[in-house]
Amino acid sequence: MRPPTIRDVAERAGVSKSLVSLALRGSDQVRPEKRDAVLRAARELGYRPNAAARSLSEQRTRTVGVLLNDLRNPWFVDLLDGLNSLLHANGLHMLLADARLNRRTGQDPADPLLELRVDGLVVVGTLPDPAALGAVAERIPVVLAGSREPAPPGVDVVAGDDERGARLVAEHLIGLGHRRIAHIAGYGAVGELRRRSFEAAMRRHGLAEQAVVEPSDMTEEGGYRTTVRLLSRPERPTAVFAVNDIAAIGVLSAAEELGLRVPRDLSVVGYDNTSIARLRHVWLTTVDNTSHEVGRRAARCLLERFEGAGGEGRVQLATPTLEIRGSTAPAP
Amino acid sequence: MRPPTIRDVAERAGVSKSLVSLALRGSDQVRPEKRDAVLRAARELGYRPNAAARSLSEQRTRTVGVLLNDLRNPWFVDLLDGLNSLLHANGLHMLLADARLNRRTGQDPADPLLELRVDGLVVVGTLPDPAALGAVAERIPVVLAGSREPAPPGVDVVAGDDERGARLVAEHLIGLGHRRIAHIAGYGAVGELRRRSFEAAMRRHGLAEQAVVEPSDMTEEGGYRTTVRLLSRPERPTAVFAVNDIAAIGVLSAAEELGLRVPRDLSVVGYDNTSIARLRHVWLTTVDNTSHEVGRRAARCLLERFEGAGGEGRVQLATPTLEIRGSTAPAP
Repeated sequence: MRPPTIRDVAERAGVSKSLVSLALRGSDQVRPEKRDAVLRAARELGYRPNAAARSLSEQRTRTVGVLLNDLRNPWFVDLLDGLNSLLHANGLHMLLADARLNRRTGQDPADPLLELRVDGLVVVGTLPDPAALGAVAERIPVVLAGSREPAPPGVDVVAGDDERGARLVAEHLIGLGHRRIAHIAGYGAVGELRRRSFEAAMRRHGLAEQAVVEPSDMTEEGGYRTTVRLLSRPERPTAVFAVNDIAAIGVLSAAEELGLRVPRDLSVVGYDNTSIARLRHVWLTTVDNTSHEVGRRAARCLLERFEGAGGEGRVQLATPTLEIRGSTAPAP
Repeated sequence: MRPPTIRDVAERAGVSKSLVSLALRGSDQVRPEKRDAVLRAARELGYRPNAAARSLSEQRTRTVGVLLNDLRNPWFVDLLDGLNSLLHANGLHMLLADARLNRRTGQDPADPLLELRVDGLVVVGTLPDPAALGAVAERIPVVLAGSREPAPPGVDVVAGDDERGARLVAEHLIGLGHRRIAHIAGYGAVGELRRRSFEAAMRRHGLAEQAVVEPSDMTEEGGYRTTVRLLSRPERPTAVFAVNDIAAIGVLSAAEELGLRVPRDLSVVGYDNTSIARLRHVWLTTVDNTSHEVGRRAARCLLERFEGAGGEGRVQLATPTLEIRGSTAPAP
């Protein structure tokens, strides 16, 4: 039994050898159906390409470390799926570490991964101090995924386009006839981008005066408390756009407690399309970050750096979509 | 600056040296407040004990691999917290791998961890084929945490006491005056234990005839569909005990759709005390597995094996508690 070759993969997937090669490198020029067919064929045959392996000297571990900001909020699951699909197709393993746990025990979050000499590092979500990754980035390729914080030199950033996502929300609500719209804002680069884009959309529609922005800590409890305050005003908003799904859940609770029915009396929108938003019991209108695509692109950045690509870090944004579910309706 | 010693930790925590030593080994004889004080002092001083390190030859990695069954259901987060606290206090790192992702790409789930030569393996949740871990267990210590499947020789098992948990639920509902009680059951060892214990409790109270058991796939959708069927019966149950929180969320949706109010018309109980059950919008009565304790005990099993403990695998059960929230009330 000889090991499977790229030709076998091409035959099984019904495509050309060069298309297999493009698909395995995660090229944008390959249509998703073809890409999936190639990845499936490679998996079924147990094909392991030599490209990544060739460029890695023998003492490398062929393992990519993934540092997760906080396992408790599972928004990153689709991102890992996308990351893993492309890394594995290139013969690379993926290991995870929880930055929150490592911080709690006083370690530098990336330490356990670096001590095992991973070949590259993907940081998922917002770290308190991304600049500290500069020293790591001098030794191995580093990619930030799903966060928009300023990155050290040579570090690539792949994230959803938060400005576009927030604009989609504002326009959806305005299109439903809402005028008094509140935004429960967050912090960090992501919180800032979503807020500014919401405000800009309201201005463009001549609704700057009707926009209400309240800060929050991006938790359910924060969303709840802020909403209780918002809805007790004489001129209460008819729609609330929360900075993330978990704060939007807090909005739903507050509305329920105050006797308002969603979406009849109040429309609510979240952000991230987490598994919680998809629960039938919640069924929240929200923004999908196309996290699978973010993960796939992050993997591609790493693969290119492994193959010797140098240069400054680039910022790549994936295009989000609006998932319209049961929590939004025409203004009362 | 000399490195901190066990004496420094004892002084800072205000306890004796031997208590520090017991606490770091995770002994049951240490009260939780003392244990936390010791772990905190060790962390603040940056103390690294030599015990674990001594027993590991120099070519070891001082890293424990954690194989998670499926990252999408975040019930394991507290378990990781408990595991990490004790491992780190003993100078050991923790790395994670997602078994579902590895399976999808056709790898053996533990492979990425084993290739980096972890010193021990903790498997969290139910693997499709735990027996396959037998070969791993011949090389390094393996512990199964949070699952009750039969383990290969020499593998320790630490989990919550599912029989006791299900009994707590049945007695809570019976105590509230419920008679017609339905159980939405699950699969695997955990599903089996919860179901049998529920049935036994109903029998003990002379309610065997009133107990209704329906199988499910342990998902939200499964809980929903089963409940719609259950509640359409002429003699509908007044309480539903779901095998896990996520299926209980499906019960809540079904009740809402059928115009039944929870808990006035229908009491609902879940299992696992996940972050979803704790959402104010859900506020589900559920069983807490004391997962932090399960994680801590799993770490202790590993540490003992590192120090040379041999013998058959043992099964240790942590005692669950009932978290009574807003989804249960006296029978209508």
